[in-house]
Amino acid sequence: MGNTMLEETAAANAVQVMLDDRSYDILIGRGLIETAGEEIAETVGRGRVAVITDETVAALHLSALSDSLDRAGIVHTVLRVPAGEKSKCFPEFERLCDGILEAKLERGDAIVALGGGVVGDLAGFVASAVRRGMDFIQVPTTLLAQVDSSVGGKTGINSRYGKNLIGAFHQPRLVLADTAVLDSLPIRDFRAGYAEVAKYGLLGDGAFFSWLEANWTGVFNGGPERDEAIARSCKAKADIVAADEREAGRRALLNLGHTFGHALEAAVAYETVRLVHGEGVSIGMMLAHEFSERLGLIEPDTVERVEKHLSEVGLPIGLAQIPGQLPPVDTLMDAIMQDKKVSRGELTFILTRGVGEAFVEKAVDPATVRAFLLEKLEA
Amino acid sequence: MGNTMLEETAAANAVQVMLDDRSYDILIGRGLIETAGEEIAETVGRGRVAVITDETVAALHLSALSDSLDRAGIVHTVLRVPAGEKSKCFPEFERLCDGILEAKLERGDAIVALGGGVVGDLAGFVASAVRRGMDFIQVPTTLLAQVDSSVGGKTGINSRYGKNLIGAFHQPRLVLADTAVLDSLPIRDFRAGYAEVAKYGLLGDGAFFSWLEANWTGVFNGGPERDEAIARSCKAKADIVAADEREAGRRALLNLGHTFGHALEAAVAYETVRLVHGEGVSIGMMLAHEFSERLGLIEPDTVERVEKHLSEVGLPIGLAQIPGQLPPVDTLMDAIMQDKKVSRGELTFILTRGVGEAFVEKAVDPATVRAFLLEKLEA
Repeated sequence: MGNTMLEETAAANAVQVMLDDRSYDILIGRGLIETAGEEIAETVGRGRVAVITDETVAALHLSALSDSLDRAGIVHTVLRVPAGEKSKCFPEFERLCDGILEAKLERGDAIVALGGGVVGDLAGFVASAVRRGMDFIQVPTTLLAQVDSSVGGKTGINSRYGKNLIGAFHQPRLVLADTAVLDSLPIRDFRAGYAEVAKYGLLGDGAFFSWLEANWTGVFNGGPERDEAIARSCKAKADIVAADEREAGRRALLNLGHTFGHALEAAVAYETVRLVHGEGVSIGMMLAHEFSERLGLIEPDTVERVEKHLSEVGLPIGLAQIPGQLPPVDTLMDAIMQDKKVSRGELTFILTRGVGEAFVEKAVDPATVRAFLLEKLEA
Repeated sequence: MGNTMLEETAAANAVQVMLDDRSYDILIGRGLIETAGEEIAETVGRGRVAVITDETVAALHLSALSDSLDRAGIVHTVLRVPAGEKSKCFPEFERLCDGILEAKLERGDAIVALGGGVVGDLAGFVASAVRRGMDFIQVPTTLLAQVDSSVGGKTGINSRYGKNLIGAFHQPRLVLADTAVLDSLPIRDFRAGYAEVAKYGLLGDGAFFSWLEANWTGVFNGGPERDEAIARSCKAKADIVAADEREAGRRALLNLGHTFGHALEAAVAYETVRLVHGEGVSIGMMLAHEFSERLGLIEPDTVERVEKHLSEVGLPIGLAQIPGQLPPVDTLMDAIMQDKKVSRGELTFILTRGVGEAFVEKAVDPATVRAFLLEKLEA
């Protein structure tokens, strides 16, 4: 079975995101940064380009991208931000907007985001706003950014009142997912991105999850299985986004593991030494499966199967694996209730009826969740 | 003729802006602020509302709007900015975004702009960005805002590199143009807005321009002719915007008088004691007509006819009416060349073949414009 899928991949390393006149391609493959200049020229022409990146990524990958743009005859400016979530802020947004205008980019010129989710979110919001919308190209350099934030058009910065609260929907014109750059990714970050890969299997594609169980070492080692897994993940998200661009219905499935996960990230005050997003999602997905078992929706062996896989790739699967003290249950519940998924006192949760069979449940009783979480905290 | 039009108006004080799923109504009439609460509730429901306004407008009209929202049972917060163009800046953008989040508005709640173009542009950009897009309602309180910025969805703030360079296309859900509030507008501001009203006649509706020649005193005095003129203007812009939302082609006609006008505004360093936008447009429209005559497109009596009308309503019609010294011709030409309308060394200008017959000319020789302007400066 895995073999059939691999044969498909070799030919099909492009995923189309279908959104009418804003449709775009995600190209996936090793070494794509080397040919980025030509791909960009084919998509948006040879106008000026501003590359937005962070210091860490610039040290690793900027010269390859810059050389490629030079070879394609694309004049470009580089704007750098400090690495890390703190750059998703109003002052950096203003500084980048001004930087693009200072570089005299016109409407019709393009902004290229070279980096992970932070750079992509920030640069995308900048691209949406300068001259009321410029062409935007993503060169995501983390697994998480390649399989998650490069699809869907969500861009934004953080406010003092919460993450991603200020932004725009702004679709890229092209995404270049160079899977070789992931070789330089710290293993903890690769694993965290893999949690989202596994999520696509768990939420709607049981066959993909089975394939991951059989082929995950190839994904981690940078074999053709990696490109395959990323393409399948992008395709899964692209299909959901195409059906529901503005997150009215089915797109909520993408939140599998995220309601618990976000609460845990908030519980550790977003201290990434304790928990990064993908780890929160991994634990959150386990909690979603255990909670679904509690509600009689799935059997214990389904929970065990998911736990076995997430555990074998090295992802955390329970609250006990978060270093340090966790806050009391009511603090976690407050975070859950503030996660924009509450309507008339009832919680919206993504639950599941089996591997690949997640669904949106809009009437979850907070008291049941609290009792479940209390038990987990005390375990 | 004027009479027929007036009879139509009494029934039809709503203009529909057709933009697929983002279509909306502009309601036009005296006293609409009194019933704004109910209109808003009918359009977006009775969720929370944030009213964004400036100090000057708040003193005149906020209590009427606030009372109306109270009567409709709409809980609302008021966020004020200083009056004037300087509020269209990054710091106010950030402060307003934070203010809306602090007031705990959710996706699905609405932002109401009560004010002129500055408040509308700024509040619209805020509405586009908070939670990646909230419902937006405009209550424009100047003639210029009622006939121009309330149609088309352009929102934005200024950058140190130029005006309106940062923003979004974000359509309102509803526009309430209360024509009675214009009674409190300083006459100079009313006249400046009227330049844009006349523009709609000049660019594409000769019959409307003739009607204005016959009925302008009613427009100024607040008779039913005022509502009629505003409705016709909104309809004209709405038709153009519906055909060309992103300013690719026909929308450029709306720039009649604006290329010269913007250059003159820049020439006086945007000092509104010397020249406000509508006055620049009025002089710019005269220059566009005189330049069209120079090119043999129209007869001198057409120029005289336009001049007579703009002059009788009290608008400036020539460079000599701008107080103080104007810069040399090359400074004006630099401003014209920077006005985003240059392609491969040739200028795009809106010229005319007669009253109501403007057209886009994409290949105007800058040297011809320079010679024309030099003559006007030396006249």
